[in-house]
Amino acid sequence: MTVQVAVVGGTGYGGLELIRLLHMHPYVELTSVISHSESGEDLHHIYPHTKNVVEVNLDEWNIEETLEEVDYVFFSLPSGISQKYVAQARELGKNCIDLSGDFRLKQAQLYEDWYKNTPANEKDLEEAVYGLPEKNRANIEKSSLVANPGCYPTAALLGLLPMAEIEGVDPSSVIIDGKTGVSGAGKSLTLATHFTESNENVKPYKVGKHQHIPEIEQLLEEQFAKEVNITFTPHLTPMTRGILCTMYVQLHNEVTAEELIDHYRSFYESDSFVRVRDAGSVPGTKDVYSSNFCDIAIDVDSRTNRVTIVSAIDNLVKGASGQAIQNLNIMNGWDERTGLWTLPMYP
Amino acid sequence: MTVQVAVVGGTGYGGLELIRLLHMHPYVELTSVISHSESGEDLHHIYPHTKNVVEVNLDEWNIEETLEEVDYVFFSLPSGISQKYVAQARELGKNCIDLSGDFRLKQAQLYEDWYKNTPANEKDLEEAVYGLPEKNRANIEKSSLVANPGCYPTAALLGLLPMAEIEGVDPSSVIIDGKTGVSGAGKSLTLATHFTESNENVKPYKVGKHQHIPEIEQLLEEQFAKEVNITFTPHLTPMTRGILCTMYVQLHNEVTAEELIDHYRSFYESDSFVRVRDAGSVPGTKDVYSSNFCDIAIDVDSRTNRVTIVSAIDNLVKGASGQAIQNLNIMNGWDERTGLWTLPMYP
Amino acid sequence: MTVQVAVVGGTGYGGLELIRLLHMHPYVELTSVISHSESGEDLHHIYPHTKNVVEVNLDEWNIEETLEEVDYVFFSLPSGISQKYVAQARELGKNCIDLSGDFRLKQAQLYEDWYKNTPANEKDLEEAVYGLPEKNRANIEKSSLVANPGCYPTAALLGLLPMAEIEGVDPSSVIIDGKTGVSGAGKSLTLATHFTESNENVKPYKVGKHQHIPEIEQLLEEQFAKEVNITFTPHLTPMTRGILCTMYVQLHNEVTAEELIDHYRSFYESDSFVRVRDAGSVPGTKDVYSSNFCDIAIDVDSRTNRVTIVSAIDNLVKGASGQAIQNLNIMNGWDERTGLWTLPMYP
Amino acid sequence: MTVQVAVVGGTGYGGLELIRLLHMHPYVELTSVISHSESGEDLHHIYPHTKNVVEVNLDEWNIEETLEEVDYVFFSLPSGISQKYVAQARELGKNCIDLSGDFRLKQAQLYEDWYKNTPANEKDLEEAVYGLPEKNRANIEKSSLVANPGCYPTAALLGLLPMAEIEGVDPSSVIIDGKTGVSGAGKSLTLATHFTESNENVKPYKVGKHQHIPEIEQLLEEQFAKEVNITFTPHLTPMTRGILCTMYVQLHNEVTAEELIDHYRSFYESDSFVRVRDAGSVPGTKDVYSSNFCDIAIDVDSRTNRVTIVSAIDNLVKGASGQAIQNLNIMNGWDERTGLWTLPMYP
Repeated sequence: MTVQVAVVGGTGYGGLELIRLLHMHPYVELTSVISHSESGEDLHHIYPHTKNVVEVNLDEWNIEETLEEVDYVFFSLPSGISQKYVAQARELGKNCIDLSGDFRLKQAQLYEDWYKNTPANEKDLEEAVYGLPEKNRANIEKSSLVANPGCYPTAALLGLLPMAEIEGVDPSSVIIDGKTGVSGAGKSLTLATHFTESNENVKPYKVGKHQHIPEIEQLLEEQFAKEVNITFTPHLTPMTRGILCTMYVQLHNEVTAEELIDHYRSFYESDSFVRVRDAGSVPGTKDVYSSNFCDIAIDVDSRTNRVTIVSAIDNLVKGASGQAIQNLNIMNGWDERTGLWTLPMYP
Repeated sequence: MTVQVAVVGGTGYGGLELIRLLHMHPYVELTSVISHSESGEDLHHIYPHTKNVVEVNLDEWNIEETLEEVDYVFFSLPSGISQKYVAQARELGKNCIDLSGDFRLKQAQLYEDWYKNTPANEKDLEEAVYGLPEKNRANIEKSSLVANPGCYPTAALLGLLPMAEIEGVDPSSVIIDGKTGVSGAGKSLTLATHFTESNENVKPYKVGKHQHIPEIEQLLEEQFAKEVNITFTPHLTPMTRGILCTMYVQLHNEVTAEELIDHYRSFYESDSFVRVRDAGSVPGTKDVYSSNFCDIAIDVDSRTNRVTIVSAIDNLVKGASGQAIQNLNIMNGWDERTGLWTLPMYP
Repeated sequence: MTVQVAVVGGTGYGGLELIRLLHMHPYVELTSVISHSESGEDLHHIYPHTKNVVEVNLDEWNIEETLEEVDYVFFSLPSGISQKYVAQARELGKNCIDLSGDFRLKQAQLYEDWYKNTPANEKDLEEAVYGLPEKNRANIEKSSLVANPGCYPTAALLGLLPMAEIEGVDPSSVIIDGKTGVSGAGKSLTLATHFTESNENVKPYKVGKHQHIPEIEQLLEEQFAKEVNITFTPHLTPMTRGILCTMYVQLHNEVTAEELIDHYRSFYESDSFVRVRDAGSVPGTKDVYSSNFCDIAIDVDSRTNRVTIVSAIDNLVKGASGQAIQNLNIMNGWDERTGLWTLPMYP
Repeated sequence: MTVQVAVVGGTGYGGLELIRLLHMHPYVELTSVISHSESGEDLHHIYPHTKNVVEVNLDEWNIEETLEEVDYVFFSLPSGISQKYVAQARELGKNCIDLSGDFRLKQAQLYEDWYKNTPANEKDLEEAVYGLPEKNRANIEKSSLVANPGCYPTAALLGLLPMAEIEGVDPSSVIIDGKTGVSGAGKSLTLATHFTESNENVKPYKVGKHQHIPEIEQLLEEQFAKEVNITFTPHLTPMTRGILCTMYVQLHNEVTAEELIDHYRSFYESDSFVRVRDAGSVPGTKDVYSSNFCDIAIDVDSRTNRVTIVSAIDNLVKGASGQAIQNLNIMNGWDERTGLWTLPMYP
């Protein structure tokens, strides 16, 4: 039951992580890795660590030839660019999993406002399914275009979705304080991600302006069935991988941490990759390092009647490439843990 | 106009930073460094980096002999232990600056609840002045016992105090998300501060239970003149130094970031160590590294009508030893920048 | 063709990495994890990151009961302690792979001198096979007691063994400058491995005194068939994983880097996990992160007629647990890549 | 006795560190900071951490106007570019301290070979004094053009110079294994210094090809009075600051570590910034962090009759800007510790 797979944008960190994870997948044959900037090169010339394990020559984007035999195409390209290639692939009937932000926002206007870019075409936008399996598994299964969620939205939403069923919770009270490892900023060279600038430094960025805000709000609006405006502050922290979201929600009724934990556990009963901690135990990003897990802790502060929710993922795995493969598994009707059921690397 | 100074607890990180900073102070003679655990040793045997620069033999605590000539005593001891030594020193009429939590909380009961320890004696507690110069300069000037603020409270309060004059702000809406470097946990060996556990890891701790909560609330209550309950979540981040507090406050009237920035700047007009950023500019902890500065940024999110305040300090300087020396300067009527007016080390 | 396996010392970093890697092994059933200090606990209580993936209750060492069904036992215990448990397991006929230093040195006196400990019993010492597959594959295949090599010796020897066939090379000219990540020091709390002490710090330790010196010399003596005395300086560097050995060898004849590279490649022709770089390309530890690879670079300095050899491994994988599993594969006649053929995690 | 000083190239890391250190210097007035790329800007717009402390507007290079009042000019420019500006300043009679590699190598041919650049003019080259105070103090005192040493050469030479008086030592047996923090690579963005690439990575670079090789050899040739060819391998390590050189020298007579330590101490008797450790004690880079010290340890391996010398500096201080100020002090006849006599920052 092998499928043929291509990765477009294979030399960025998302594409590279796809290659690492797909190599462990028993039902996948990686047929082609496409890189505009490095086409013609052997992958191991750019990334010597791939030598002997994954030997591919980087292809140019030549949709008819390169993708002829391919069943599924992963797109790991910058937002604004991805949509054009996806559109071409879909015309040829390919199943697409897109890791950019191009197909996540259903309202074209929101995309324009937050991404400062032209939105994807209407048809694709409409057909795209938001690829958060814990929310959309049934739709993903039938989809041929999955919009893989952003890294922060994955961590945030998995921590917040179950709150919709708690009486009296106003989703607009949600405040999300996000901390990311530097790989989240990608491979492009910037002063902020120069080692000497980000080492020994914790620094907020895009305060109140991050393009993941409307993505989180869109999903919360679906879940809570009302308009939502949240506050979100991302921070760059001196580590390579990992996202931790600390989230604050105002309660209006009395509820204990234990009750919420029980509720979260039953909410995620069928979700292998979400693990809810016992009361008093809190995950760090290292607890999910290199894995597809999202670990969640919940604390209720009775003094302020606020819930503090902590959610940890590996930004390159559950926050990007691992989740994309989880979606591939679902689209194919395979156990969604296939190829992803590894222990986090610790330490 | 030299004063004679002793440091009690000189081999912890707070004491060590005192020694580093006092060495640069033109009016201070460091007469004695006291260390219970290492008395009799030369400081450079424990810390070879001090060789030739600060040559002292570690003294035992022997108040009458060791402190005979001393005018000011810095105590850098664990909470619960410090109070006893301070009490003895005060009986001999010494001026004391205490870096522990023992004299910060005015209500003995709060100390018992949060520190799980016996509070200091009533008289000392009553006479102790909370050593945040930007709030209490006049009282510090006349005080003989300064309770040096905690690291998180310093960053948090400097970011929050000016909000008391903004109409309609409820201090109980305050949420503080703190990130600290590992030196904040001190020199004691713990699994959480073992390199392999804290490297490549961002992890919350003491969620809703940190002993700095009542300290922050006490000062906010004074400033806002009403009861205050805040939410505070500290996080351990993989760096040696630095604290960044990201703070969220609900607004009830319309106010712009520019207006708030103006207000903060006039609020801190006479405070050399507080620097308020222009709109759109945000500090990281590296911007204050090794210095006594507190850099503050303010952003208003008109979508949610919330203010996001970012405050960055070096936890060992403005968050501990630097502020203690600032207090020494004030107690002596010196320019409070004396010995502290250095550029942050960057990178 | 499944074998039943036990890990003794499962809560140290070596044991933990064994559990991570064994979980990916298709022919292994992990029957028991033994921990003296934590017996009775669920593994996920100590290591929450293992939750749901590897669910085991930690056993006490009770050889007859615990190991009854087990075919292979991995020992990840401190040197000096391991030998006693191994002896017991061998009396019951178990196949043993020992990760400590107890069975590596053939001369009991050397063990006493460098480990300051009583050596293992003569019979075990004699029967133990040094588990460096690239040198000893045939013997490992027939062995029932494998002494898994040390982390530094693995990196050093793979870089040096092929030099024995280069004419005129005196192995006593070898100088090894080793750099390790902090996980090499294990999970025990020490000041040197406290985050604040090892972060932003590169520091040599055990200069000329490291217990891996006689291990490296013993193997070089076998390979070069002469007495060998080398110089070795290990350094602690601020990262979690990785060992890089930079090695210097005096040449006496003219030889080019290209010739040496050709020679190394043919030397390692059948060794899947050794990758020799093209001239001018040099590995960093990140190139082998999380994997069982050893990447090697060779440079000839014609000005000094010295060879510089660089060898990089992940200290916990090829330097410990990965190599132990490679040995398990060989002992069972399986492809030695089984369960280990993963891409290094990058970045 | 104040002198007026300008810094040319003030926005690179070397220039920035000059500004930090000069600010603490009691006899220096920083009159002008010159930056080609950022002229017209306030320094704090580029580096907000300088706000309020050092308020300067960046000047363009306009030698007659900008330098009119200036007595001493520090050049912190790339090699190949610096020479032209220095030549101009010298024509106007300015005293110059150059931090580039342009005036270090006395033989123009060597400069061409290793820097792949046109050498400086003959007269300047001839008059330039190599600014290693511990070797050249007397010449520096009389000089008007100081070639400030490279970071690696500073650490290496201070560790090696005293060996010239040890009988039977051949300087061509010297092997230097260098480890640097990433700030040594400067502020230019490169993939190798991107956080995600250098974090959790130790990696050699320019193996046998680093331009500091001829600089080290030139000075060793002077000291040993014979031709010298050394081996040098630099490594990038995941920290911001610090250089550690581990050096290996073959002995031909018997000598103990204690004897060498005594010799080193008497060799450096008048050198405040060199500290030689007791036998058995070894410095890490953290022991000299932020300071102008060079800490040295010496070990003799009687098994191989080799000396291992460890030398640690802060690459931006003793390895660059601190040493430049030490040279300024010497040129002015001031105590060379002036403005530099601070405790290393620890932790």
